[in-house]
Amino acid sequence: MIGRLNHVAIAVPDLDAAADQYRDTLGADVGPPQAEPDHGVTVVFITLPNTKVELLHPLGENSPINAFLEKNPAGGIHHMCYEVDDIIAARDKLKASGARVLGDGTPKIGAHGKPVLFLHPKDFTGTLVELEQA
Amino acid sequence: MIGRLNHVAIAVPDLDAAADQYRDTLGADVGPPQAEPDHGVTVVFITLPNTKVELLHPLGENSPINAFLEKNPAGGIHHMCYEVDDIIAARDKLKASGARVLGDGTPKIGAHGKPVLFLHPKDFTGTLVELEQA
Repeated sequence: MIGRLNHVAIAVPDLDAAADQYRDTLGADVGPPQAEPDHGVTVVFITLPNTKVELLHPLGENSPINAFLEKNPAGGIHHMCYEVDDIIAARDKLKASGARVLGDGTPKIGAHGKPVLFLHPKDFTGTLVELEQA
Repeated sequence: MIGRLNHVAIAVPDLDAAADQYRDTLGADVGPPQAEPDHGVTVVFITLPNTKVELLHPLGENSPINAFLEKNPAGGIHHMCYEVDDIIAARDKLKASGARVLGDGTPKIGAHGKPVLFLHPKDFTGTLVELEQA
């Protein structure tokens, strides 16, 4: 069912410092910050030859990553996003197997303009899993 | 400097259960467990179209992931591995920029039979970074 690893997301307390690290210290292809008010984050995309890393920083008081950064003040890996061909079919198969889909199970439009869902980390060995319809 | 994302490693408390989840629930291409006594882990490789996920489980009392699983009993994302062309050049550039290389700075032979180094997570926004010479 799952296809490519679309991205790994890292929540960071200082977006400029993290972007500088990946650009200057690790020599990666780092894009400009993009505000995503609908998702409560500002995102910096790092383009690798085979996948992406996304640096996430809270945008607004109700950002979904505020709690994560409170628990992990230095930052940390927040989630992994796998591509699927059909997000509704994937959701239904996952629910039938007992996995918990976060929210009401209706896909939202993610940062790439495509439908996404998140799966409960307790069902996937402590890893928050995002599915994105490719 | 960094190239492809070689893999994302997830430490898991129950290797068989995690392998079953990725195989049966997520429909991924999951390999057999491989003991890596030199690294104190048993590894299951999950092959995605563009990269790999590695499930890690402690092997032996001195496993380097015992402490991680004590802090994260349900498991969690342990590290990310980027490929570099020349690990010695990468190490020297990183040290010159102030990043801390773990151990004595001498590359070890990793699970893929290639030289690897780990960078201090405090220097990379809470993310343990492995570099592997491709």
